[in-house]
Amino acid sequence: MSLLEQVDAPTRLRGMTVSELEELAEEIRQFLIDKITRTGGHLGPNLGVVELTLALHTVFDSPRDRLLWDTGHQSYVHKMLTGRQGGFDGMRKPGGLSGYPARAESEHDLVENSHASTALSYADGLARADAHRGVTGRSTVAIVGDGALTGGMAWEAVNNTTGDPERPLVIVLNDNGRSYAPTVGGMGTHLEKLRAGTSDHSVFEQLGLAYIGPVDGHDIHALQEALRRAKVSNGPVVVHAVTEKGRGFEHTERNTLDLGHAIKPMDRSTGRPLSSSSGPSFTSVFSAHMERIARERPDVVAVTAAMVEPTGLVPLQEHVPDRVVDVGIAEQHAVCMSAGMAMGGLHPVVAVYSTFANRALDQLLMDVALHRRAVTFVLDRSGVTGDDGPSHNGMWDLSALQMVPGLRIAAPRDGTRLGELLEEAVSWDEGPTLLRYPKGPTGPDVPAQATFEGMDVLTRSGPLDVLIVSVGTMAGVAMDVADGLRAQGLGTTVVDPRWVSPVNDGVAHMARRHRLVVTIEDNSRVCGIGSSVAQSLRDADVFTPVRDFGLPRRFLDHGKRGEILTDCGLDGREITLAVIETLPGLPHQDGPRVHDSVDVEFERITLRTQDEQETR
Amino acid sequence: MSLLEQVDAPTRLRGMTVSELEELAEEIRQFLIDKITRTGGHLGPNLGVVELTLALHTVFDSPRDRLLWDTGHQSYVHKMLTGRQGGFDGMRKPGGLSGYPARAESEHDLVENSHASTALSYADGLARADAHRGVTGRSTVAIVGDGALTGGMAWEAVNNTTGDPERPLVIVLNDNGRSYAPTVGGMGTHLEKLRAGTSDHSVFEQLGLAYIGPVDGHDIHALQEALRRAKVSNGPVVVHAVTEKGRGFEHTERNTLDLGHAIKPMDRSTGRPLSSSSGPSFTSVFSAHMERIARERPDVVAVTAAMVEPTGLVPLQEHVPDRVVDVGIAEQHAVCMSAGMAMGGLHPVVAVYSTFANRALDQLLMDVALHRRAVTFVLDRSGVTGDDGPSHNGMWDLSALQMVPGLRIAAPRDGTRLGELLEEAVSWDEGPTLLRYPKGPTGPDVPAQATFEGMDVLTRSGPLDVLIVSVGTMAGVAMDVADGLRAQGLGTTVVDPRWVSPVNDGVAHMARRHRLVVTIEDNSRVCGIGSSVAQSLRDADVFTPVRDFGLPRRFLDHGKRGEILTDCGLDGREITLAVIETLPGLPHQDGPRVHDSVDVEFERITLRTQDEQETR
Repeated sequence: MSLLEQVDAPTRLRGMTVSELEELAEEIRQFLIDKITRTGGHLGPNLGVVELTLALHTVFDSPRDRLLWDTGHQSYVHKMLTGRQGGFDGMRKPGGLSGYPARAESEHDLVENSHASTALSYADGLARADAHRGVTGRSTVAIVGDGALTGGMAWEAVNNTTGDPERPLVIVLNDNGRSYAPTVGGMGTHLEKLRAGTSDHSVFEQLGLAYIGPVDGHDIHALQEALRRAKVSNGPVVVHAVTEKGRGFEHTERNTLDLGHAIKPMDRSTGRPLSSSSGPSFTSVFSAHMERIARERPDVVAVTAAMVEPTGLVPLQEHVPDRVVDVGIAEQHAVCMSAGMAMGGLHPVVAVYSTFANRALDQLLMDVALHRRAVTFVLDRSGVTGDDGPSHNGMWDLSALQMVPGLRIAAPRDGTRLGELLEEAVSWDEGPTLLRYPKGPTGPDVPAQATFEGMDVLTRSGPLDVLIVSVGTMAGVAMDVADGLRAQGLGTTVVDPRWVSPVNDGVAHMARRHRLVVTIEDNSRVCGIGSSVAQSLRDADVFTPVRDFGLPRRFLDHGKRGEILTDCGLDGREITLAVIETLPGLPHQDGPRVHDSVDVEFERITLRTQDEQETR
Repeated sequence: MSLLEQVDAPTRLRGMTVSELEELAEEIRQFLIDKITRTGGHLGPNLGVVELTLALHTVFDSPRDRLLWDTGHQSYVHKMLTGRQGGFDGMRKPGGLSGYPARAESEHDLVENSHASTALSYADGLARADAHRGVTGRSTVAIVGDGALTGGMAWEAVNNTTGDPERPLVIVLNDNGRSYAPTVGGMGTHLEKLRAGTSDHSVFEQLGLAYIGPVDGHDIHALQEALRRAKVSNGPVVVHAVTEKGRGFEHTERNTLDLGHAIKPMDRSTGRPLSSSSGPSFTSVFSAHMERIARERPDVVAVTAAMVEPTGLVPLQEHVPDRVVDVGIAEQHAVCMSAGMAMGGLHPVVAVYSTFANRALDQLLMDVALHRRAVTFVLDRSGVTGDDGPSHNGMWDLSALQMVPGLRIAAPRDGTRLGELLEEAVSWDEGPTLLRYPKGPTGPDVPAQATFEGMDVLTRSGPLDVLIVSVGTMAGVAMDVADGLRAQGLGTTVVDPRWVSPVNDGVAHMARRHRLVVTIEDNSRVCGIGSSVAQSLRDADVFTPVRDFGLPRRFLDHGKRGEILTDCGLDGREITLAVIETLPGLPHQDGPRVHDSVDVEFERITLRTQDEQETR
């Protein structure tokens, strides 16, 4: 029985000698490489914190002492030491272990939000609660990366942890010199000096915290010593541990870009991903178009928040370096700074994950939109992301952002539309624009059979029964529904407005001629496009009933994107059945019926799309 | 002719001696006191920056050099020196001078967002744009308060300004030791040490910026010297100016709390506000209930972001000091820290302005709601705020927050409801709750005539024609509409759901019996309660048409709250007319009509409310 197999709880680590812990560290490292190369996951960050996690669990007594893992992808070793080794084969799979801390898995897990820079604030809150309630003798420990310190929220917390020496708090700075990519800015440079011993004081001491370090983050004994000192400190204290991301994994070490930050299942002998490519992704299509546009337009600059690689900006950065600005994990600054750039005559393209854009709502609304700045936002990982669990789904962007005055929002349904819409977005100089698309392959193009008032009509056949308004990649589902309804003898029109918000007036014009409007989107139903389509109908005195399909008002567990969409009823079969059930109960419409130019236009589209479908 | 009258542009300051500028400073100070005590406005901050603004406009050449005023309420002196002295009598009045920089007023004004901590990010963007476009020989100057440095966004910007010595940038730190109240945290303490000369290094130097100071912020000559040095610096540089908020105003000096931060029109001889009180405000009602609840419940703690006084927490802070936590201008931290407090067994009540809550959307969604933490949010200045212009209106909260799973949102219509709903909110332990209410007096109570499925029926009479769903203080307008419709022989039911999101199922039950549903809210129509009411009807197969009245999808200029609401069509007369026009065009409803328990309930309510109205 290996040492690792004996550790089914952190209490098993008590009494282990440093050399036993070192042996255990090696076993953990091999376990991680073995498992994560098969399942995929955040390998690099976890290989960096093996010794640190062991030291933490020997010095502190979890769950009485609270260990708060910032950006929870660094919690795999913690999971292994808290009874969850058996779950690693199902890592990030439906029903399996989450790739982040999950309260349902263990009492040792506390924070499920895997957005960066939050742990210090949680810790401050916990420490205040203990002080308020008179609870003593237990520690609150926040483990934060150096990258997380580029996020303003971490600084807000640092500013607040210094007020009261009666609130002990241990901040373990896991400094591997990078987030996805090397940590940007003055903080990164400062930490470099601290690591090199060429700075007299740390910025933390200037702000009133105690500072211990730098400590070799792979020296278990040194880590234990430092953590023990921190544990008995009265006030807030920073333990600066210097770690090496991806330590011990040769393929990781060869990838100088992100050091195996998040890998796909791979062939161990070659380091190549196992899964065959499923065609170009939205990210790669954006990447190519962005480079082309930047070469044509000297005023176009990409801005991102520690996301150069994941948003597809590496080629642009390599080929035209002055066109990529990475501000660190600092979405607020990214957006407001872009407003400043636009004021200065540039056209910034802010590329971030959809879920992280929520960090910058105020800046998008006030700094960009109020000032009518022509900034383009590109939200990757919109809709259901899947593997990364509830805090990575991009299912809120349409709900939070439709209200922004002057903001035009597009949802490309395929690669061709992404190129076209990005081009339109950077050509629009009267205000902000936003594109949203999901993780994964673009899939085959879904061509337009006709256009109507600037919208793409994807199919039109039979009587004017059901109008389906499709948002982005839901076009495939919409076409399935159209097929299903056609098989039942029901006529269907599928329209993709491309620019989904504000709602195109043409939707109401079309809706007036149909018996039912169906909207399909991979966003929360609450305040989604469906709600706005219904509002646009009301405003146009169109009383055709609406059925809006989208994601439910709840957080979604991790799983595969397709399965989650199906679970939420967003597939062709479910929606077809729902529509067929709905139609007989609809009120009879006796509103004004005129045969006008819109009807003539529909007849023309119907004839043409039928011709095209027959010749296919 | 006074010196001041001769200054109609900053160029007039050229060649003035320091003693002339000092004379001018005195004239400016008297002008400000004279005007602002009459009109009301941000007197204290502007009295503090008289000399600083003069020094800035003599050293820099606006608008070629860009002066960016963070939290623009410190821009009155700047307005006086850029040709706008004549407008001060109309300050903050409809059509008059804005209380903040306004691009429509002057080419010297650049940023209209008066949320704190943005100027450094704008400046970084402008500096990057100049560097990118090869523009040289002009300066970018951000003037920020010490309070603004407690905001994380400022730190994100500081971290990013240090990257490139080729991007010159002047940061003028206007350090008066406070935002509304004394600046909290480690940063405040650090600045105190810098002011006292007891710190070796500044935190700015640690992060790679040059530092000049501290400089006496009322010594024009010293300020000019420091700014001239900064102007020729190659990289980013901080000029630390120490100023005195409210300098030269005796009433201000007597108010030790906020030093005349924002005053109402007052009697100069007594320092008392001129306007007679118009009854208790929502803020004061919250204040009283909050203190009562805190005394009863040891686990209830108020949290705010540099807003102790404006949100009404001063009495609680004075009487039960350990129940108020002020984290500085740090909404993100306030919300996430509260999630930590809730995890630690407390029930935090986060009191901020509605418009500033947008800064913490991600934290509310991920840290509070995903973790189902029982945190109560109290959003003051929701809806139309008025005087403070577009960036202070709280017209976005319902749009941005309805999607949050598990968040219950209440809109109290009067003081009594505020007390009841706050009590319900802090008693709910299954997840987050939120109350929103506007600036100003609660007005008289609007009593419920009956209740229906947990909702207050405010009036019910005549045939079942129009159901009005009223949100919060729109109850007054809703009652006016009911009166107007009754005069036309139309039956009306007015319901206040109290908890407006998620929509009470009872709304659909009532809606089914009416010919038209009208919703009235002082929030953006886009993704407002009206949209969600309509969705709840669709989901319940209720096809009664909906007319949703709310604020338009645009930014609103400053003005009086009541006038803005009327301009936006949110008054009884406008809505009554719109409803009367709508009714004849509605489709005939031939859905299922049954006389069931809901009808019986309505008849009961109708009889009872008629009885009550007759006996009034």
